[in-house]
Amino acid sequence: MPGNSFGKIFKFSTWGESHGPAIGCTVDGVPSKIRIDEKEIQFFLNQRRPGSSKFVTQRKEKDRVKILSGVFNNYTTGAPISFIIHNEDQKSKDYAKLKNKFRPGHADYTYEKKYGIRDYRGGGRSSARETAMRVVAGAIARKILSANLGSNFLIRGALIQMGSLHINRDNWDWNFAKKNHFWCPDKKMLKIWENYLTQIRKSGSSVGAIIELEAKGVPVGLGEPVYDKLDAEIAKALMSINAVKGVEIGSGFESAFMPGDESSDEMTLNKGKVKFESNHAGGILGGISSGQNIVARFVVKPTSSILKKKNTVTKKLKKTTISVGGRHDPCVGIRAVPIGEAMLACVLADHFLRNKIFQS
Amino acid sequence: MPGNSFGKIFKFSTWGESHGPAIGCTVDGVPSKIRIDEKEIQFFLNQRRPGSSKFVTQRKEKDRVKILSGVFNNYTTGAPISFIIHNEDQKSKDYAKLKNKFRPGHADYTYEKKYGIRDYRGGGRSSARETAMRVVAGAIARKILSANLGSNFLIRGALIQMGSLHINRDNWDWNFAKKNHFWCPDKKMLKIWENYLTQIRKSGSSVGAIIELEAKGVPVGLGEPVYDKLDAEIAKALMSINAVKGVEIGSGFESAFMPGDESSDEMTLNKGKVKFESNHAGGILGGISSGQNIVARFVVKPTSSILKKKNTVTKKLKKTTISVGGRHDPCVGIRAVPIGEAMLACVLADHFLRNKIFQS
Amino acid sequence: MPGNSFGKIFKFSTWGESHGPAIGCTVDGVPSKIRIDEKEIQFFLNQRRPGSSKFVTQRKEKDRVKILSGVFNNYTTGAPISFIIHNEDQKSKDYAKLKNKFRPGHADYTYEKKYGIRDYRGGGRSSARETAMRVVAGAIARKILSANLGSNFLIRGALIQMGSLHINRDNWDWNFAKKNHFWCPDKKMLKIWENYLTQIRKSGSSVGAIIELEAKGVPVGLGEPVYDKLDAEIAKALMSINAVKGVEIGSGFESAFMPGDESSDEMTLNKGKVKFESNHAGGILGGISSGQNIVARFVVKPTSSILKKKNTVTKKLKKTTISVGGRHDPCVGIRAVPIGEAMLACVLADHFLRNKIFQS
Amino acid sequence: MPGNSFGKIFKFSTWGESHGPAIGCTVDGVPSKIRIDEKEIQFFLNQRRPGSSKFVTQRKEKDRVKILSGVFNNYTTGAPISFIIHNEDQKSKDYAKLKNKFRPGHADYTYEKKYGIRDYRGGGRSSARETAMRVVAGAIARKILSANLGSNFLIRGALIQMGSLHINRDNWDWNFAKKNHFWCPDKKMLKIWENYLTQIRKSGSSVGAIIELEAKGVPVGLGEPVYDKLDAEIAKALMSINAVKGVEIGSGFESAFMPGDESSDEMTLNKGKVKFESNHAGGILGGISSGQNIVARFVVKPTSSILKKKNTVTKKLKKTTISVGGRHDPCVGIRAVPIGEAMLACVLADHFLRNKIFQS
Repeated sequence: MPGNSFGKIFKFSTWGESHGPAIGCTVDGVPSKIRIDEKEIQFFLNQRRPGSSKFVTQRKEKDRVKILSGVFNNYTTGAPISFIIHNEDQKSKDYAKLKNKFRPGHADYTYEKKYGIRDYRGGGRSSARETAMRVVAGAIARKILSANLGSNFLIRGALIQMGSLHINRDNWDWNFAKKNHFWCPDKKMLKIWENYLTQIRKSGSSVGAIIELEAKGVPVGLGEPVYDKLDAEIAKALMSINAVKGVEIGSGFESAFMPGDESSDEMTLNKGKVKFESNHAGGILGGISSGQNIVARFVVKPTSSILKKKNTVTKKLKKTTISVGGRHDPCVGIRAVPIGEAMLACVLADHFLRNKIFQS
Repeated sequence: MPGNSFGKIFKFSTWGESHGPAIGCTVDGVPSKIRIDEKEIQFFLNQRRPGSSKFVTQRKEKDRVKILSGVFNNYTTGAPISFIIHNEDQKSKDYAKLKNKFRPGHADYTYEKKYGIRDYRGGGRSSARETAMRVVAGAIARKILSANLGSNFLIRGALIQMGSLHINRDNWDWNFAKKNHFWCPDKKMLKIWENYLTQIRKSGSSVGAIIELEAKGVPVGLGEPVYDKLDAEIAKALMSINAVKGVEIGSGFESAFMPGDESSDEMTLNKGKVKFESNHAGGILGGISSGQNIVARFVVKPTSSILKKKNTVTKKLKKTTISVGGRHDPCVGIRAVPIGEAMLACVLADHFLRNKIFQS
Repeated sequence: MPGNSFGKIFKFSTWGESHGPAIGCTVDGVPSKIRIDEKEIQFFLNQRRPGSSKFVTQRKEKDRVKILSGVFNNYTTGAPISFIIHNEDQKSKDYAKLKNKFRPGHADYTYEKKYGIRDYRGGGRSSARETAMRVVAGAIARKILSANLGSNFLIRGALIQMGSLHINRDNWDWNFAKKNHFWCPDKKMLKIWENYLTQIRKSGSSVGAIIELEAKGVPVGLGEPVYDKLDAEIAKALMSINAVKGVEIGSGFESAFMPGDESSDEMTLNKGKVKFESNHAGGILGGISSGQNIVARFVVKPTSSILKKKNTVTKKLKKTTISVGGRHDPCVGIRAVPIGEAMLACVLADHFLRNKIFQS
Repeated sequence: MPGNSFGKIFKFSTWGESHGPAIGCTVDGVPSKIRIDEKEIQFFLNQRRPGSSKFVTQRKEKDRVKILSGVFNNYTTGAPISFIIHNEDQKSKDYAKLKNKFRPGHADYTYEKKYGIRDYRGGGRSSARETAMRVVAGAIARKILSANLGSNFLIRGALIQMGSLHINRDNWDWNFAKKNHFWCPDKKMLKIWENYLTQIRKSGSSVGAIIELEAKGVPVGLGEPVYDKLDAEIAKALMSINAVKGVEIGSGFESAFMPGDESSDEMTLNKGKVKFESNHAGGILGGISSGQNIVARFVVKPTSSILKKKNTVTKKLKKTTISVGGRHDPCVGIRAVPIGEAMLACVLADHFLRNKIFQS
């Protein structure tokens, strides 16, 4: 029983392989009368697009998205919205030699074993190319949320760690983060990361990264205990992104080190409204948003496709070695920022709609 | 749209409040002809039970589970299996004074805001009491897995960090972990933790913990890309447990620090079978189990209900303070071990059944 | 992958066997702050209860329902509501002789083949006893609908055909229908049916029936094209009731005989509001409620358990005969009226909540 | 919460409007390694295609289907299969004058009210054009079933009533049914229907029809009590087709007239195997297939778009009249035959896969 859909009310389903004729998704559960503009979606897609700097893969994918249904005169009709991106610049021949070898760190072996058949071209269905469609769905999710929550609502992300180099939180500048190709919020760290990653790339290796996401303007009440808690859904959403190995909310793993009198956020009043004195909870209490900023972090492992030779086996179970010389990212974590934002947007849009039954 | 169910094929749904007449769950999607014994379920329940040592809450709950349907002459019939535990030792009066105050770190405020009404007795639906039913469902999940995977299959968990004190992995002993009330796998650490936690308890505070889970004997092929990946589902399952703030798989957040030539597990052969030379992936590649051990960790924040006085507000929005003098755990993370194991078992049972469509 | 739940947002799941310790259901997706009274639920249950007249089975089941969760101080909290009815008056010995024989017209053979194991006592899970829980869920569904739609909203049902005897529509009287044990809306037909059914019962046979349901006060807009159309969902809901063999909406099978200029309901205005000049559509256009009365009919086959001897086979595949001497209804269709009403209520409550995403 | 998907494991989701750039569907839950050929799918699509005789609409739609994903070297990979048909021959101007009027018997009024916005061109999402994608999904469903059940498995349908004219069952000839444009199984009735429908068409009116479907070679065990019974799912599937107003299984509404000693099918043995002596049940007992032929019937109302002038209202609530002069079918029931077959195939494929958890 496959799992190509995400969400319960705001629900999107993706299809397509890296080297097939196209990739696409259908977004269902979108309320009617929401203004949709292909250009706005394209804006977010361009953020994820390969080939935008020397620090990401040099594949040239225009990733031009097209709406095929569900939008009439620029407004949603309540019908499913279908999106398509035609694949271009596929160099399938690059992958022919990988047909019978399993790339370490990739899904080649597990797909072969699970399905008994495998589209080996560029990873097929397991390729990160699929994430383009998450960004598309995320753009629609943002439209739903903005239409309902107003201009206070905002989702943004930043890279806070690249390999072993962590930013300095005291230097945090969201405006700066938006302007550089690393989503780096620390002006002083940018140059250091550039040199570091250039070295990594030249050495034929790769590094991991940690991304922090923030959602502002989320109302109290989103999240459905006890299994579809908001944090549980965010954890699933982020962990489903290619190469992600961990997720944390608020103080996350640091919580283990705190005493109980520090870790729970005290409450007070500010101009007659509830105000929390800290945000260790990351904006979620008992699985329900508290009105504070939602804060989540996730880690992306280093790119597995590297130039360095690695041991592996063939489909016919013979030992061999492999070196993947394609056009790959030295730090895939960079391109994971807009994808993480998109997944967070999708979780919030779904839960905004799910919460409607509790509102009169 | 509530979220009181977990799983797609192996699906359990829980109900009940901390201080209502009973709690219960219905487990659906259990194949027929599986032998079920109330005593085996009770065995796992007893591991989670409060009152078993001075380090956990002193509430006396017998937690005696009863099967009401779906089992005939000790075998499952394919019909839903209904379980009930009648609530005992409820001191509802303890909670009357909390009726109008929001406990920091708890779900009081968010439940009140989301639903506009709240069963304030012992946290009501948000109480960790609900997790007893996760353990029941987990016991059934283990039966399904064992019946199909044989005696190689095994799920186990250990506490690897309490507050700021981490075990020494070189001393790891699974047999020892099973025998002590901390699930501590490091003989040398046990005494230290005991002293540490006694101090914490006496000071009226609490600490967090990190738990590591391992599943052995899981076949290649479980997990459903691209949204119901095995790791995504495990992340959701564990994050849905009360007080959990982070989840990681395999090398988890450590992956950020590794270079790409280390982080992907190389493959070789052993007696003609595929063998991985490391397990940074935690047994999951591309969201599908690889046949290696599944390794997951999660962090539990410190108990929020502590003796120390904290700032908060009332339902009518007045500032106040609170000190929760009930019978609580100084480290809820301890009791989270069997719950984590249970949730992992449920994910695996569900995905074992979901994978059946790909098997002839 | 079992199917013991009904609905997507308003969702109920039943469990229990005819001769197990209890039957029950969990109703999830109920908005908070709805007043629930056990007595109101019992009112509907009593309508379905066996033993209420000589025309229905003489089993004595008190069917006393108990609420176990989700209701606090008589109001729903948004948490799942769990119901239980303890089984009484089970004469399991009656059924021992049927252990190895398949009753014609019953689910004995198919359950045995599907599951490889069968609770043969009283039909086990396949027993119509399960429908008691549909009536409970239906009572909750009505509460949700009434709370939102006001006193104009109403669901009612009547028996319009018993065996070969059809009522005269010109005599239709809803008030009369409510007062007699046949739900007969035609005063003149009542006596005739009584004599007819007495004869049938004495002859050891049984007859089928057709039930008509009506829902008034349903707003325009319920139903989710193109697969969860309101009529499609009603069809499923009614066809899922034991012994039902057909469902029709509005003019139903009569539509085949009508010319196109008659069958589509013309529209006009009445005091500035849309008014349909007929209701062949049964209140549903394009799968969405139109504001007219919803009209549905379903047919219940004759009780299969009869005194007359019938040919069948044993579990070990030997020819034999069977005569079922239990306490059965000569016309199960009668007791299907409150069950049909309940299922219609559940469909409408679910779709009322599902439609909320399209309302600002 | 929309309903654009059908099925739980074998699950297809359609998108697209009558006059948008394309229509499409994604079929998920298809086991891997099943051979798929675009030509085989096209074969079924051509059966539904308009313009194939003077008795169906003269719109020229080539309905050329294209596979975009999920199939590699002609075999399914376990990934979602995406299909697209580009719309052609759209005469949107035909519909401009209908922009502000609600066509009686159509979904115009209910869509406008539900969504507050409406793609009025050709019915938009409510157009029967959507059913092309059901036929595509049905073709895939048949492939799954044939691959597993072998050549005994077969689904076929016939028109048994057109307007008031019913076929003679004694003349039933399946081979003949396949060869004529009416799917008429009675050679003697064909000419009569032709004359009848010619008259209807010339008079500017339309008629309804009844279709009978049969599935042979279905194993015992498909169907999931107690809500996803096989007959309940078939009822939903068929009732979800445009213009369908009733569904019945086996003896259906005739069951009301039968005495209990006739209506339940007696069982005997034939060469050591279970044999039923009749098939009033239509191959389903207790919601589970019995191994007999599955028999279902459904009624399609007369085409609502006719030349005769009818009363209606405008969007701005003014009285008016309407006469729909487009290119429509005098009896849409004819084209419903392959659609009904397809929906039955989808239900069976889904339940074949759902039943897998009960098989070792």
